[in-house]
Amino acid sequence: MFQKDMSISLLLDFYGDILSARRREIIEMYYNEDLSLSEIAEITGISRQGVRDSIKKSEKELLQIEESLGLVERFRKLKAEIGSISSDLGAIIESTDNKELKEKLEAEIKKLETLDI
Amino acid sequence: MFQKDMSISLLLDFYGDILSARRREIIEMYYNEDLSLSEIAEITGISRQGVRDSIKKSEKELLQIEESLGLVERFRKLKAEIGSISSDLGAIIESTDNKELKEKLEAEIKKLETLDI
Repeated sequence: MFQKDMSISLLLDFYGDILSARRREIIEMYYNEDLSLSEIAEITGISRQGVRDSIKKSEKELLQIEESLGLVERFRKLKAEIGSISSDLGAIIESTDNKELKEKLEAEIKKLETLDI
Repeated sequence: MFQKDMSISLLLDFYGDILSARRREIIEMYYNEDLSLSEIAEITGISRQGVRDSIKKSEKELLQIEESLGLVERFRKLKAEIGSISSDLGAIIESTDNKELKEKLEAEIKKLETLDI
């Protein structure tokens, strides 16, 4: 955990609400608010070691949930596929001179790019 | 639970692996294999009431997980939005006579429609 792992942030986004409120609060301070173990210890009144243990337990739980459910991976694949479709539409825009069509396709690309994935 | 609720099947698809193996097996027989409580009781050697209780507990757990995480709802929205983009592309195809363009857009619609959502 000492390199702040970006994938933990993603797991936290998906599964964070499954953790207890206290454990979630601590791991979010670490990953989302970028506080140090010492800073979190001071804020929560738990020992630095206690903070570290809590974060490790939460990480383990999040990783186990993803191992069971695979939903982060499912979203990740979906995002890549949608990105590819969006690029394809971009290439189609390049291939035509029809201004109206270009505008319509640009609007669809924008919709694809703003999907909540 | 006595009307077999389709949304439970969906929750089971997303979160089923979080249930214990035994509880999952029972609720899948009920929702996915469409067996009756009595049939499941016979197969598992549990009483009919035991089967019913197990299914109820599993349903409650699945609903609680969705209430916390909301991922089924997130996928559901995404699916609707992608369906709408796909329809828009269909309308764009109708609006052009360019055969090559039509074919290219049809290929993109197919990609959208076969996404794993």
